[in-house]
Amino acid sequence: MANEEKDVKVSIDDIANFCKKKGFVFRSSDIYGGFSGFWDFGPLGVELVNNIRNNWWDFFVHKQENMVGIEASIISHPRTWKASGHIANFSDVAVICKKCKKTSKIDKSEVGKINCECGGFFDVKGEFNLMFKTKVGALDAEDAYLRGETAQGMFLDFNLVASTSRVKLPFGIAQIGKCFRNEISPRDFLFRSREFNIAEFEFFINPNELKCSLLEKTQLDLKINLLDEEIQKKGKETLRLTTIKEMLKEKKLDEWHAYWLAEQIIWLNNLGLTKIKIREHTKDELSHYSSATFDVDYEYPFGSKELGGNANRGQYDLTQHAKESSQKLEVFDEKTSQRVIPRVIEPTFGVERIFLAIMTNAYEYDKKRDNVVLKIPAKLAPIKAAIFPLVKNDEHLVKIAKEVYENLKQDFYVVYDESGSVGKRYARNDEIGTPFCITIDGDSIKGKDVTIRDRDTTKQIRVKIADLENVLRDLIKGKIKFEKAGKLI
Amino acid sequence: MANEEKDVKVSIDDIANFCKKKGFVFRSSDIYGGFSGFWDFGPLGVELVNNIRNNWWDFFVHKQENMVGIEASIISHPRTWKASGHIANFSDVAVICKKCKKTSKIDKSEVGKINCECGGFFDVKGEFNLMFKTKVGALDAEDAYLRGETAQGMFLDFNLVASTSRVKLPFGIAQIGKCFRNEISPRDFLFRSREFNIAEFEFFINPNELKCSLLEKTQLDLKINLLDEEIQKKGKETLRLTTIKEMLKEKKLDEWHAYWLAEQIIWLNNLGLTKIKIREHTKDELSHYSSATFDVDYEYPFGSKELGGNANRGQYDLTQHAKESSQKLEVFDEKTSQRVIPRVIEPTFGVERIFLAIMTNAYEYDKKRDNVVLKIPAKLAPIKAAIFPLVKNDEHLVKIAKEVYENLKQDFYVVYDESGSVGKRYARNDEIGTPFCITIDGDSIKGKDVTIRDRDTTKQIRVKIADLENVLRDLIKGKIKFEKAGKLI
Repeated sequence: MANEEKDVKVSIDDIANFCKKKGFVFRSSDIYGGFSGFWDFGPLGVELVNNIRNNWWDFFVHKQENMVGIEASIISHPRTWKASGHIANFSDVAVICKKCKKTSKIDKSEVGKINCECGGFFDVKGEFNLMFKTKVGALDAEDAYLRGETAQGMFLDFNLVASTSRVKLPFGIAQIGKCFRNEISPRDFLFRSREFNIAEFEFFINPNELKCSLLEKTQLDLKINLLDEEIQKKGKETLRLTTIKEMLKEKKLDEWHAYWLAEQIIWLNNLGLTKIKIREHTKDELSHYSSATFDVDYEYPFGSKELGGNANRGQYDLTQHAKESSQKLEVFDEKTSQRVIPRVIEPTFGVERIFLAIMTNAYEYDKKRDNVVLKIPAKLAPIKAAIFPLVKNDEHLVKIAKEVYENLKQDFYVVYDESGSVGKRYARNDEIGTPFCITIDGDSIKGKDVTIRDRDTTKQIRVKIADLENVLRDLIKGKIKFEKAGKLI
Repeated sequence: MANEEKDVKVSIDDIANFCKKKGFVFRSSDIYGGFSGFWDFGPLGVELVNNIRNNWWDFFVHKQENMVGIEASIISHPRTWKASGHIANFSDVAVICKKCKKTSKIDKSEVGKINCECGGFFDVKGEFNLMFKTKVGALDAEDAYLRGETAQGMFLDFNLVASTSRVKLPFGIAQIGKCFRNEISPRDFLFRSREFNIAEFEFFINPNELKCSLLEKTQLDLKINLLDEEIQKKGKETLRLTTIKEMLKEKKLDEWHAYWLAEQIIWLNNLGLTKIKIREHTKDELSHYSSATFDVDYEYPFGSKELGGNANRGQYDLTQHAKESSQKLEVFDEKTSQRVIPRVIEPTFGVERIFLAIMTNAYEYDKKRDNVVLKIPAKLAPIKAAIFPLVKNDEHLVKIAKEVYENLKQDFYVVYDESGSVGKRYARNDEIGTPFCITIDGDSIKGKDVTIRDRDTTKQIRVKIADLENVLRDLIKGKIKFEKAGKLI
């Protein structure tokens, strides 16, 4: 994507405006002037975010060995958050700049150390816990909290999952779901909001096991080498996975930590997100539960910022909940015949941050076409194909087009479109990221074939109607190259 | 399913215990003694609930014309709930029985009219609003609410959706998501909880249009007749769709209302849920926003209770929000060239109630096999197939089985299982609802084929490995009958 147009810097406001205009993202409660820190996904946005979540689940749950999912409640027993340390520790400091009067949040460790961007001194307004509080029950109401992270669900359900499913150490429990943080100053569109989705898993390992199994180690080395070669060939500006290899040599992380960090990068690369950096947390920055955390940063329009991360939570959470609940949170390790409290590696992503990275990466203004082309990977695109009759007043073409549409609709989210010129229909679909446009023209009647046009290159191929379903499936999966999926025109 | 075993009444406690044992549903915060009204989906439950949501979305969004989805925030501007009437009207009355001391909730209209089940008189403890309240913001904190229904998101975003997507009246906006109600006495497992998912849409119609278009009317009649014939042939105890036809004649509902009520029944029937009744709300029961509501009731172990519903919300919500926000919530109707405030039909389902109906309907103890057989429709089943080598110490069989597994894993959620006898593996998979077991045996090496065993009938067919992906896809979709998908053994 190293073309000229791409070099014109797109601002976060451009992306936010585009998202509103095309029905990807709206301000929550827009008719009431919005509500700071809350956003709604519109018709195209909800399709994209569903595809991101499904793709993550497929990669990290269905395709992994020894990984299962859960969906825990957002409100859980209040002792959860006492045990986890969130009531005591999960807070920021609110400050107002004495010069520019802007409200900001700073970390507790930064009080007295840093000033406002404008140079002004901060007036400290107090420490605020980020957990939203509510009351549960009518006659016997008690304080409860909206979860600030999905992770606690996996710790609370640890024993139940270990005893009812067929997982063996090491194994993971995954979850995607809404989290809530009462941010002091929400900002940067979807990036820092008060309600958002996290996709993460807790990977439980025998605490004495710092190395992966030979199988995973071999896979890790293989993947590192393969991806590095591929990346070097393509000359992409991207993180070399050898970075992880080097960090491993320097003992900045253990093998399991490295393995999952590599898997995260591989997943991002699969989605076309290559402008990734890994950043190790300094001691000051570490969360109260972590002994080592690596941020996975993406090059957003407002700078290189956290897209996800990977924390070594050790035995912290299970130990805390065991103490608070007086229950044993242990599991039998068949390999060593010991009962152990596992240590935990936590690879995590902000779903809205992935969404924002995908949109930023996909957004391109094409000078020649004079319209935006939204190059979302086909597997994530909201609508997979648009089906047109060349003209709408030819009943033969319309009939075939509707048949093609009805048929493809059984397996894909596709739209039928007959309004305006074909050029306009192409432009409209370019702008919303539809990867394939299928046109039924005069030749389709006799030849029983159609033209498929590729969004990114505008190349066109001719494909038999009978083959369309399989061709479209393979194109979406990336199993075949567009040029080879039919007769190039 | 009119077999003897099915006639043994399964209680809601049986279902809850089974759900816990097999990892479908756990009490939230189980290690802290649970938290009343909150539940977690376990490893198999999250797969089932995801499949239910995806199936609903596919049927009611992707496959409909003029329907789009959104995903609004759970917390929205507090004026939302003032305008909607929820702050004033969304409350129940808490009562304690003077005799048995049980706390219950009753409707405001029932105060002084009804007594406890035990015959005792109620002591009224007061009226409680069902909305969970919290505070948003640090320095300028204001009261806000967790949504009690998803519907308001569609009304708040109405103008934005109408202006950014290509829908034309009549059209629908759909959403699936978490809702929260501070129930006075949560009960009946997942049935009445404090945190749950709703899947619903608001269908917007020109207020002067009481009849559907000819196309929909024809489709409606056709569907009613076809389904009635099919149902009569099979002799199922089920709602005749002619009921809707009769209600239509008696003018209990308008054509659009009838159309969507019929679509709801058709969707439920597609999932094997046939023990359905439609119940019209009495005037006392109607929500503050509705002029006519029909409950869709399912025969649960604890009685015939609401699974979903369909309310005629008229112009109530758009008018209320227009007043409160001083914005026009109107749309141009191309058919009549008028700007109108649409009237609204709202077909809705409780996702956990669908889950519970599916589990109840699927649960069967098979005396001959001496294990539970969970007859979840294949398209909803958590795991689509289990792949076994006949014995685990034959490296040839293991190699082929692993290849089959790796290959199918690309497209389906499947598991590999080599532990225990084949009989045990069948039983294990029967109990968790896996519709197909694929065994690789001695003949597979030469014949390049495998045995597929059907969960519900235990019938077996022989299928070529090369055809397995397509056969499994067609079986899951219900495109082919099991007996015809291969050579019956």
